[in-house]
Amino acid sequence: MKATEPTRIAIVGVGKIARDQHMPSIEHNPNFTLCAAVSRHARVDGVEHYNALDAMLLKRPDITALALCTPPAVRFDMAMAALRAGRHVLLEKPPGATLTEVETLVGEARERGLTLYATWHSRHALGVEPARDWLAPRRIRSVRIVWKEDVRRWHPGQAWIWNAGNVGVFDPGINALSILTRIMPHPVHVASADLDFPSNCQTPIAARLEFADPFGATVTAEFDWRHEGHQTWDIAVETDAGSLLLSEGGSRLTIDGEPAVSGPDREYPAIYEHFAELLAAGRIDVDVSPLRHVADAFLVGRRHEVDAFHE
Amino acid sequence: MKATEPTRIAIVGVGKIARDQHMPSIEHNPNFTLCAAVSRHARVDGVEHYNALDAMLLKRPDITALALCTPPAVRFDMAMAALRAGRHVLLEKPPGATLTEVETLVGEARERGLTLYATWHSRHALGVEPARDWLAPRRIRSVRIVWKEDVRRWHPGQAWIWNAGNVGVFDPGINALSILTRIMPHPVHVASADLDFPSNCQTPIAARLEFADPFGATVTAEFDWRHEGHQTWDIAVETDAGSLLLSEGGSRLTIDGEPAVSGPDREYPAIYEHFAELLAAGRIDVDVSPLRHVADAFLVGRRHEVDAFHE
Repeated sequence: MKATEPTRIAIVGVGKIARDQHMPSIEHNPNFTLCAAVSRHARVDGVEHYNALDAMLLKRPDITALALCTPPAVRFDMAMAALRAGRHVLLEKPPGATLTEVETLVGEARERGLTLYATWHSRHALGVEPARDWLAPRRIRSVRIVWKEDVRRWHPGQAWIWNAGNVGVFDPGINALSILTRIMPHPVHVASADLDFPSNCQTPIAARLEFADPFGATVTAEFDWRHEGHQTWDIAVETDAGSLLLSEGGSRLTIDGEPAVSGPDREYPAIYEHFAELLAAGRIDVDVSPLRHVADAFLVGRRHEVDAFHE
Repeated sequence: MKATEPTRIAIVGVGKIARDQHMPSIEHNPNFTLCAAVSRHARVDGVEHYNALDAMLLKRPDITALALCTPPAVRFDMAMAALRAGRHVLLEKPPGATLTEVETLVGEARERGLTLYATWHSRHALGVEPARDWLAPRRIRSVRIVWKEDVRRWHPGQAWIWNAGNVGVFDPGINALSILTRIMPHPVHVASADLDFPSNCQTPIAARLEFADPFGATVTAEFDWRHEGHQTWDIAVETDAGSLLLSEGGSRLTIDGEPAVSGPDREYPAIYEHFAELLAAGRIDVDVSPLRHVADAFLVGRRHEVDAFHE
C-alpha cells in the first residue's frame, strides 16, 4: 500500500478489551493514530478524553474513524451518531443486540459511502484460514464444537451479562460460530437448540445446538459457562479424507493428529490491518451470520430451567 | 403481459390455507394451471395426487413451480429438494423456521437462476399500499400495533403450535410485522420485548414489543392470543400531519377518522399475480425483515411464565 496519512481514530468504551487489545493493535499499526478515547468513567494516559461521544464528534472533525468497544446493548445509538457525523466505524463483536439494527447501520453506511466493519476476532485466530483451505475440497462428515469455560473466571462481577438483551453463553459461543461460518464450505442452519436458563437469569448459561446440513453432515455445538478446570474451545471436523482439530479458540490447528499451525495470538492486529484495507478501498464488511445463528437458536430453542446462578 | 403458456404448478401441503386460499387463487389466475397436490393424507378432488414430493418431482418434470403450504418446520427440506430439481418455489409465511435456512434457499435459487418468493399475505391487504403512500412524506410520531385474537378459535386442535420451533403468538403477530416493515418509510428495530410463556408451553402466548426508531418515533406492538370477544388487528399511526388507522388486518384504512379504503379480500389473488410477474422476470423476492423482527424479539426478550394453557 502506498504511504498515506494515518487515519485518526478514537476508541469508544474503555474497558478491558479496549485496553488489552484495541489500543496496542492501533499503536503498532502505522495506518492509525489513536487521538481520543470516549468513556464516562475510564481515562487513558496520554490520550485526549471525552465523556460523551457527541462532544468528541463536534470537537474533533479530523478524527475520521471510531472503534466501538461498548457493550452491544448501547452500540446502535453510538454507531448511528458516528455514521450520521460522517465517520467510519469498527464494531466489536457482536455488532449489535439485534439483527435488524445491524442492517440499519449497513444501510446508513452504504448511503453515506462510509466504511462499516463488524469484527469477529476469532476468525483471525491462526488456525482458521488454513482450516478453511484444508476443508474446501473435502466432504465433511461431522463437525463437533465444544466451547466450555468458567463464567466466574472470565466475567467476574459483570452481573449485567444475565439481563435480557445479552446472549449469555453465546457471548463466547458466538466466537465458535464465527469460526464455523468461516471454515464451512457451505452454509448450515440451526435445526434444534436446547437452552438452559438459570432460574434467576434471563440469559442462558448453557446451550446445545444441532445444525441441519444440506449435504448431510452431522454438525453440533455444545456451549457451557459452568465449566471449571481445563477451559475448552475446540472444533473437531471429520471428513472423507482425514480429520482436523481447531483448539484453543482456533489458534492451534491439528490435522490427522499432527500439529499443523500454532503461534502467538495476532487476532486484533489482524483486525486493524483489515480495517485499514477496508478504509483504503471504501468498503463495508458486515457478516451477520454468527449473530443470525444465535438469533435462530433463541427462535427455535427449547427452554430449560436449571439451578440459579450465584457468583 | 403477452399470452404465454400457463405455468404448471403443484401445491405441497394440503391444509386449510391451501384449500381456502391457494387453490381458488390459482384457479382464477390464467397464468397458472394446478396440476398436482402433494400431501401425506389429504386428497383434492380432480387433482393428481402424490404422497411424497420426491415422487412428484420425478414423475412430473413439466410442473415447473411449487407452492409450499406445509408448516415452516418442515419447509426447508422440501424447498431445497424442489430448487435442486430446478423448480420455482413460492413459500407460505413465514418462509422458514430460521433466518439462516431462508438465506441458504436464496443462495440456491440465485445459483440456479430460479424464482423464490417468500409471501407475506397481509402486505396485500387493501389498505397497506395506500397507507405506505400516505406515510411516505410524513414525519411519524407514533405507531401502535394491537393484534389480539383467540387462539382457541383460530387454531383448534393444533397442539403442535406450542412446541419449540414454532413462534406462538408471533404466528399472527408476524402479519402485523409484515405490514409494519412495508408501510414504514425507514427501518425500526426491536429495543425490548416481554414474552409470556404458558408454564406448559415452549412458545409465547403473548408479547409486548418496543421498537427503537432512529428518527425518534414511539413504536410499540402488543400481541395476545388469549383475547376472546372482538378480534382486533389494528395499526394506528400518528404523524405531524394527521393520523391513520389500519384495521381488520390491513383491509380497512381510515385517515383522520374518515374511511379511506375498504373492500373484499384480495390477498391471495394478489400473491399469485405477483408470483406470475416474478416468474416472467426471472426474479427472487425474499424479504426476511418480518421474521428477523421475531428472531430479534426472542433474542432480546424478557421471558415471563404465565398460566398454563389448556384448550
